[in-house]
Amino acid sequence: MKKILMTGFEPFGGESSNPSWEAVSQLDQSLIAGSHRIIGLQLPCEFEASLSVLNEALNALQPEIVIAVGQAGGRCDLSVERVAINLIDARIADNAGAQPIDIPVVPGGPTAYFSSLPLKAIVQELQLQGVPASVSNTAGTYVCNHVFYALMHFASQHPGLRSAGFVHIPYMPEQAVRHPGQPSMSLSQVMLGLRLIAETAVAVRQDVRMSAGTTH
Amino acid sequence: MKKILMTGFEPFGGESSNPSWEAVSQLDQSLIAGSHRIIGLQLPCEFEASLSVLNEALNALQPEIVIAVGQAGGRCDLSVERVAINLIDARIADNAGAQPIDIPVVPGGPTAYFSSLPLKAIVQELQLQGVPASVSNTAGTYVCNHVFYALMHFASQHPGLRSAGFVHIPYMPEQAVRHPGQPSMSLSQVMLGLRLIAETAVAVRQDVRMSAGTTH
Amino acid sequence: MKKILMTGFEPFGGESSNPSWEAVSQLDQSLIAGSHRIIGLQLPCEFEASLSVLNEALNALQPEIVIAVGQAGGRCDLSVERVAINLIDARIADNAGAQPIDIPVVPGGPTAYFSSLPLKAIVQELQLQGVPASVSNTAGTYVCNHVFYALMHFASQHPGLRSAGFVHIPYMPEQAVRHPGQPSMSLSQVMLGLRLIAETAVAVRQDVRMSAGTTH
Amino acid sequence: MKKILMTGFEPFGGESSNPSWEAVSQLDQSLIAGSHRIIGLQLPCEFEASLSVLNEALNALQPEIVIAVGQAGGRCDLSVERVAINLIDARIADNAGAQPIDIPVVPGGPTAYFSSLPLKAIVQELQLQGVPASVSNTAGTYVCNHVFYALMHFASQHPGLRSAGFVHIPYMPEQAVRHPGQPSMSLSQVMLGLRLIAETAVAVRQDVRMSAGTTH
Repeated sequence: MKKILMTGFEPFGGESSNPSWEAVSQLDQSLIAGSHRIIGLQLPCEFEASLSVLNEALNALQPEIVIAVGQAGGRCDLSVERVAINLIDARIADNAGAQPIDIPVVPGGPTAYFSSLPLKAIVQELQLQGVPASVSNTAGTYVCNHVFYALMHFASQHPGLRSAGFVHIPYMPEQAVRHPGQPSMSLSQVMLGLRLIAETAVAVRQDVRMSAGTTH
Repeated sequence: MKKILMTGFEPFGGESSNPSWEAVSQLDQSLIAGSHRIIGLQLPCEFEASLSVLNEALNALQPEIVIAVGQAGGRCDLSVERVAINLIDARIADNAGAQPIDIPVVPGGPTAYFSSLPLKAIVQELQLQGVPASVSNTAGTYVCNHVFYALMHFASQHPGLRSAGFVHIPYMPEQAVRHPGQPSMSLSQVMLGLRLIAETAVAVRQDVRMSAGTTH
Repeated sequence: MKKILMTGFEPFGGESSNPSWEAVSQLDQSLIAGSHRIIGLQLPCEFEASLSVLNEALNALQPEIVIAVGQAGGRCDLSVERVAINLIDARIADNAGAQPIDIPVVPGGPTAYFSSLPLKAIVQELQLQGVPASVSNTAGTYVCNHVFYALMHFASQHPGLRSAGFVHIPYMPEQAVRHPGQPSMSLSQVMLGLRLIAETAVAVRQDVRMSAGTTH
Repeated sequence: MKKILMTGFEPFGGESSNPSWEAVSQLDQSLIAGSHRIIGLQLPCEFEASLSVLNEALNALQPEIVIAVGQAGGRCDLSVERVAINLIDARIADNAGAQPIDIPVVPGGPTAYFSSLPLKAIVQELQLQGVPASVSNTAGTYVCNHVFYALMHFASQHPGLRSAGFVHIPYMPEQAVRHPGQPSMSLSQVMLGLRLIAETAVAVRQDVRMSAGTTH
């Protein structure tokens, strides 16, 4: 059975839960397409520790596909990230108290990596199944982008890792209660979406050609 | 068994479904607090026909409580409306092709009516149960406000109608797919919310005192 | 020379300036249409004191037209308010420390008053001159709505007051610097807009018929 | 006299003007810091022609600094772009009718380039002078990002080009009139901002360390 490593984060920024881990933990051990099994992994919301936990799992599990997931409070859909940049610019301290500013994720690494997930096929499938989704062109400059970049850097050196990428998800409704005016998405919808992403990542080797860009 | 009349609308504005009727139709015949039964009613999204259907049901059913529900594409929570105004200013034509501008709902009627639902207790209960909710100070100037005003006008003349009001709800996820950047709420979350609103309307006779205003 | 009373507010909510008074103070004594003169008046951002200052000026000046102006941080255009409601629900304390919740502006007064400014003609003229503008259906439940309602209540009893209403304006750019993601409007643009509103209020006795409503 | 090449775009997307060229054309020939002169250049909003016009000017003028400017309808401040990506994904056709999807700007070029403008010093100075500003982590995937990437690619091969980057600006008020709910910025405010950006680019050789990131 091939493995899909799916990561979620612990809570941060004053939240008591993180929808990424809530969803991923429930998808742990799920069977995808009869051929793959999801392995759920919680990452600390810390610049340093997140990468050691991630790298240990990447080496130990040798997954074929990696889908990292993070909370994006304020977004209204599943945003499949297109590009990871080699830069940390922390707006708030991480859970270990560190707030690095304008330093690279990997010194000497390339400026950016593109996701190797079939982004357009994923968005197309999600929308077809009634799950709001879009391609995003920035994963920010915090721990999410940090993990995303490190993941793609690892992938660039391990051809056995067929495809990898990052997905940002909205607040859960119970979080949005404390953030008036912010959208939310139910956990079951997020779980359906993540499962569809995993299935599409398994099934599609050549992404479809579909406009999903932004003018700015 | 006392009756709670709950109304939803047929689709409008190019949509093929309306979350208000999707939710209300599934709550039809639900038992609330052991003492009340929800009667679901679909209203046409037409200025003229909506009121004849509503008034017929109000007279035939003699409900103790009326909760009218409508779709508010772009809102992210259940917004419990505070005030209905005696004005129609249609931005788009209704489903019968009518687009009245700057005419009253009830000629000679008061400028506005306040909802008689326990707004603050409702918002408090919804938030407690993890359902994003707020008090809204405008129901717009379209068919929703039209029905809301006519309902409150009826209530002002029928003391047996203990409390009445209007609730706006977000797009469903499958609608939001076609409205990029717009928030959504799952039907099950909306149904939970409407049920809690009905329960609170039954249970609370004196609204709680809680700030839920806006500076503008 | 007939008088147009134009009011602005002192700063509130932690701001060190208020664009409404910044603009109105500079328009003080301006001549409009050769027949009217603007009298600028600053109102305290206090529920109680605002009305005593307003009423004193209304009685002393006997203006033909009154345009009250207030800051609406987060809005992006000049919003001409349609309706004042007889309700205070303060989200934050006013500048005197009072935070009334769910009490009427005028006990026993009607639920609401419509503005008597030619709303549609004003929006049409502003847009024609390149000033973003819209009709708004809620002035909130704070001091702005409080003053707006009290003004319309006064107008309902003084037929000599030909027309009166309220306009909400965005942050100034220097305020928006401290509110990331919030729109702003330059003071000169606001001043041009307020002058056009005054001119239209003088010139138009019968409002134009133009759709400017909202579906919710 | 050293040169600052400042580019703006022709109108696109149904607009009859483009604030970037409106502002840049008026800054043409301005003297900056007593040592530099701004050379304004209009770029066609076409993937192909924009680069030939840009490259011709870069080679002919040999500017020390290049500041490319583009319209970002919907944004509320001057956003100084951090990163240009090697990807075109056109949501709409350009002015020549071309709509390339998922192709690189420069085949074989690096995935991305960071701006070499002193981003943080610029944002700090703009905010100090009352001009809303922020660092943005995506310039989109249309002609703006295309020009930005090509510019940084050129800069990477021409060390004489001391610093280069891209700035997105909001709609002008007269455009926002036709885009209800969208923020705007006056042309004079934009011109002040662009002048401050040029001055800061000249004065600051080592960017300041200041958090200006986003969590997602």
